[in-house]
Amino acid sequence: MRIPIWISNRHVHLSPSDVEKIFGKWYQLKVFKDISQPGQYACEETVTIEWPKWKIEHVRVVGPTRKTTQVEIMVGDNFALWTNAPIKISGDVDNLEYIKIIWPVGDIYGPFAMVSQRHLHCTVQEAQEMGIKNGDSIQLHVWGIRAVMFENVAVRAKDDYALDFHIDIEEANAAGVKPGDRAELTK
Amino acid sequence: MRIPIWISNRHVHLSPSDVEKIFGKWYQLKVFKDISQPGQYACEETVTIEWPKWKIEHVRVVGPTRKTTQVEIMVGDNFALWTNAPIKISGDVDNLEYIKIIWPVGDIYGPFAMVSQRHLHCTVQEAQEMGIKNGDSIQLHVWGIRAVMFENVAVRAKDDYALDFHIDIEEANAAGVKPGDRAELTK
Repeated sequence: MRIPIWISNRHVHLSPSDVEKIFGKWYQLKVFKDISQPGQYACEETVTIEWPKWKIEHVRVVGPTRKTTQVEIMVGDNFALWTNAPIKISGDVDNLEYIKIIWPVGDIYGPFAMVSQRHLHCTVQEAQEMGIKNGDSIQLHVWGIRAVMFENVAVRAKDDYALDFHIDIEEANAAGVKPGDRAELTK
Repeated sequence: MRIPIWISNRHVHLSPSDVEKIFGKWYQLKVFKDISQPGQYACEETVTIEWPKWKIEHVRVVGPTRKTTQVEIMVGDNFALWTNAPIKISGDVDNLEYIKIIWPVGDIYGPFAMVSQRHLHCTVQEAQEMGIKNGDSIQLHVWGIRAVMFENVAVRAKDDYALDFHIDIEEANAAGVKPGDRAELTK
């Protein structure tokens, strides 16, 4: 099966109370455009993330709000910011790296930063058809002059997920992958 | 065999005449520190590379001078600069992307820019011991939470080469590889 690849830039998920702290009381995030997973969207809002060494501006907020605020950066950002954000499955918010989010009304500081581990989204039925299941670790192959076999791809199967292989920009560039490219499951 | 990994940032190789155009008549590059391959060194000098959309400062010059000027950037730089530098084996200087190098005396403009294809340096004897030869395309594996099998690794075997697997920062970050890590040849 050829699996569409979704490439993420660094981004931020915010809790409802952190939206108010950063953007002001009663503030509502505005939809900029839909992204691959149903109900998820890039917001018009961006924030600045900061650590004493460096800051990164224009980091996109992804909505809707979540229970817990989470900043997904890239390994290269760890070097730029002098942070040590761990590589984790998105949503696993234990022991994240401390970071400050500033913009435009207030700022928040806490253990928000992680690097997302590459993962596959699919429905339970698609997982069954591929002979895999939620929680599995699989290998996905991409072709080309920078062909790579991505190992340790976490399977996240749930009925409201859309099929995609989720990597960040550094992983995409390392593999010469562009939006619209596909990966293949190998056993 | 465990092969040491060498991680390159973007950098510039200059011809003797381009050194004079950029830094001035009779200018000699200064050694900053040795790098993995014998006789090669990072220079004290850096340059700015530019394209109408963007510029990147502090790009390290790597010495000694070469017959042909060559700018090695990363895929992410292609997006930032709006260039389309091809992925090629370093030294294959046909059909490179046009780019401007400015700093500090003069500037040059020409088809200098490429993205380096991942490659293995080794001596002819090391290649024989590994059962490979110059010009082969091999697969090298790295471990960890971002474990990857790098395919299409070009073998460059020559008696004055030091053993290393040469990737750029994006490839290293995508694979969770740090300086000092090693890769393994797989067949």
